[in-house]
Amino acid sequence: MADQHIISVDRLMNRVQAIFEKSGLSPDNAHAVAHVIVAGERDHCKSHGIYRIEGCLRVLAAGKVSPDAVPQLQDSGKAVIEVDAGGGFSNPAFYAAKDALVARARETGLAALVIRDCLHFSALWHDVEALAEEGLASLSMCPSYSFVAPAGGKEPLLGTNPIAFGWPRPGPTPYVFDFATSVAARGEIELHRRAGTPIPEGWAVDRDGNPTTDPDAALDGAMLTFGAHKGSAISTMVELLAGAMLGEFMSKEALDFMGGGALLPRHGALILALDPQTFAKRSGRDPIAEGEKLLTAISGQGARLPSERRFTARAKALSEGIVLTAAEMAQLDRFEAKGLAALEG
Amino acid sequence: MADQHIISVDRLMNRVQAIFEKSGLSPDNAHAVAHVIVAGERDHCKSHGIYRIEGCLRVLAAGKVSPDAVPQLQDSGKAVIEVDAGGGFSNPAFYAAKDALVARARETGLAALVIRDCLHFSALWHDVEALAEEGLASLSMCPSYSFVAPAGGKEPLLGTNPIAFGWPRPGPTPYVFDFATSVAARGEIELHRRAGTPIPEGWAVDRDGNPTTDPDAALDGAMLTFGAHKGSAISTMVELLAGAMLGEFMSKEALDFMGGGALLPRHGALILALDPQTFAKRSGRDPIAEGEKLLTAISGQGARLPSERRFTARAKALSEGIVLTAAEMAQLDRFEAKGLAALEG
Repeated sequence: MADQHIISVDRLMNRVQAIFEKSGLSPDNAHAVAHVIVAGERDHCKSHGIYRIEGCLRVLAAGKVSPDAVPQLQDSGKAVIEVDAGGGFSNPAFYAAKDALVARARETGLAALVIRDCLHFSALWHDVEALAEEGLASLSMCPSYSFVAPAGGKEPLLGTNPIAFGWPRPGPTPYVFDFATSVAARGEIELHRRAGTPIPEGWAVDRDGNPTTDPDAALDGAMLTFGAHKGSAISTMVELLAGAMLGEFMSKEALDFMGGGALLPRHGALILALDPQTFAKRSGRDPIAEGEKLLTAISGQGARLPSERRFTARAKALSEGIVLTAAEMAQLDRFEAKGLAALEG
Repeated sequence: MADQHIISVDRLMNRVQAIFEKSGLSPDNAHAVAHVIVAGERDHCKSHGIYRIEGCLRVLAAGKVSPDAVPQLQDSGKAVIEVDAGGGFSNPAFYAAKDALVARARETGLAALVIRDCLHFSALWHDVEALAEEGLASLSMCPSYSFVAPAGGKEPLLGTNPIAFGWPRPGPTPYVFDFATSVAARGEIELHRRAGTPIPEGWAVDRDGNPTTDPDAALDGAMLTFGAHKGSAISTMVELLAGAMLGEFMSKEALDFMGGGALLPRHGALILALDPQTFAKRSGRDPIAEGEKLLTAISGQGARLPSERRFTARAKALSEGIVLTAAEMAQLDRFEAKGLAALEG
């Protein structure tokens, strides 16, 4: 189609990195942020792809993120490794600490990475996949902005609180899930509002706590978690482990701190990394081969594994390039030429 | 009411322990198993209370559990501690390893307990509460029997795979959730079958993978997870972490090994213990006080925290005793007099 432009993954990486350097990010930070955004676009995970560039530029323009933060690794030598993002994006902090986390998990069987004081916008699958490539299982979670009410409540206290899990597989792609603990994304409610269509039942309550399908009432009230009281419990766990336990913001404090949800949230993140070889050793079994028995049986009955769609899109993008629209290409041109000034146009 | 008998928690503990000793369990094992069963009854968690005695006796009578197993602690000195239950019940193994797990988590910030080769029947909240009493957050999970299909599938591959989380609170009761990742318990479908009533939509699929409300078709087909594909992903994670990763049975192998679901399953279990004081230290914040901000705000808006009903029942049982029916008392009498021979009557 005339509107379709093909760009290679490497070329898109260069362009997105150039945009962030033009916008004032240090080269290391620009590289890390561009890497995760291009990975999202490559996997046709559009909500975490180049769509995110503008949100990153807006928080830069607002002076709410440190463009040249240098992540500070704090390693106690024990099971908990910390990295202070210094008010920068979370991604450079993860990369700065990844090798230490991998080494510690292999050495002790189990290690945690605490990321402090970061701006967070990226999908968590990126981090758990990087750890699965190293042969590690991992669990990653963070708070966000408090737009979600706990089960049985009406006041938004919980974030959309994503949780991701990765498990190594013999092939090129691991077992990975990554989802919001809210039933839907806030942006989806906004899309219904603009379209004048009702939202599905079970997505939200109005400000009095009554179920609603009216997007305005929902945005004025609170979103709900997936899985009723069970999902609400998991979301609460994310607040406690990745917020309170770290001494970093929970979702409500993150929202109060930024004075609203227009800009990216600032908070911490928690990643647990487990070495299956250490855990399985005494059994004499190969944990990865054991896992395959389950995973191939799930696929074998025609059920889809999480992330399969992403992996299919990835393979296509790597061999054929990424398809962007003319409007997306034009936006890349504008951002690359003007940096932050493009926001004013 | 004439049918109600009141028994103190301590008296019930003595009686249940006597039942298990009479049935051939070593005193240590009898104590551990009785303790968790009485805790369930005390909390009016009837499905994990004295109702479980018969199931334990049946697996003993079948010679499928070691009555005098002595848990073997294997401590690498690193973040992963293991305890081999030696084909005995899981509870004595947990108690045998608890102090080492607590000490290690405090020392390193994060530690895991692997329980190998155990018979498992008890609620996981018992263990995470014991760790919360020590000031630790924890996450506990185990496989079970494969009666649950993954999202989009029809073959039962997953267990009801419970997952529990505990977080310390200043008062006498922690934040605790503990739930099956299946949408319902298999026993609930069985109750509908006996009553001749349909099961709710969303509980199960028939053997062809079609949604069903017919309990017979459901028992012949597969149960479903809570929370659609998200719950299915979490249940898969439990299989991988608490089964494959440990080199212990996943739910399908557990079912094959026992030759059906009539007796308690044999598999492993995984508990992660995290020390909030270690994780929060660098922030200068008190993680428990931070957690209270969220938890009191949830309660404050009238939403119920998980386990609240249990804690209310517990307080009542501790002050007023446990209420049992005449039939329940008669069964205790019979078990205490005859031990395993009571199963034949």
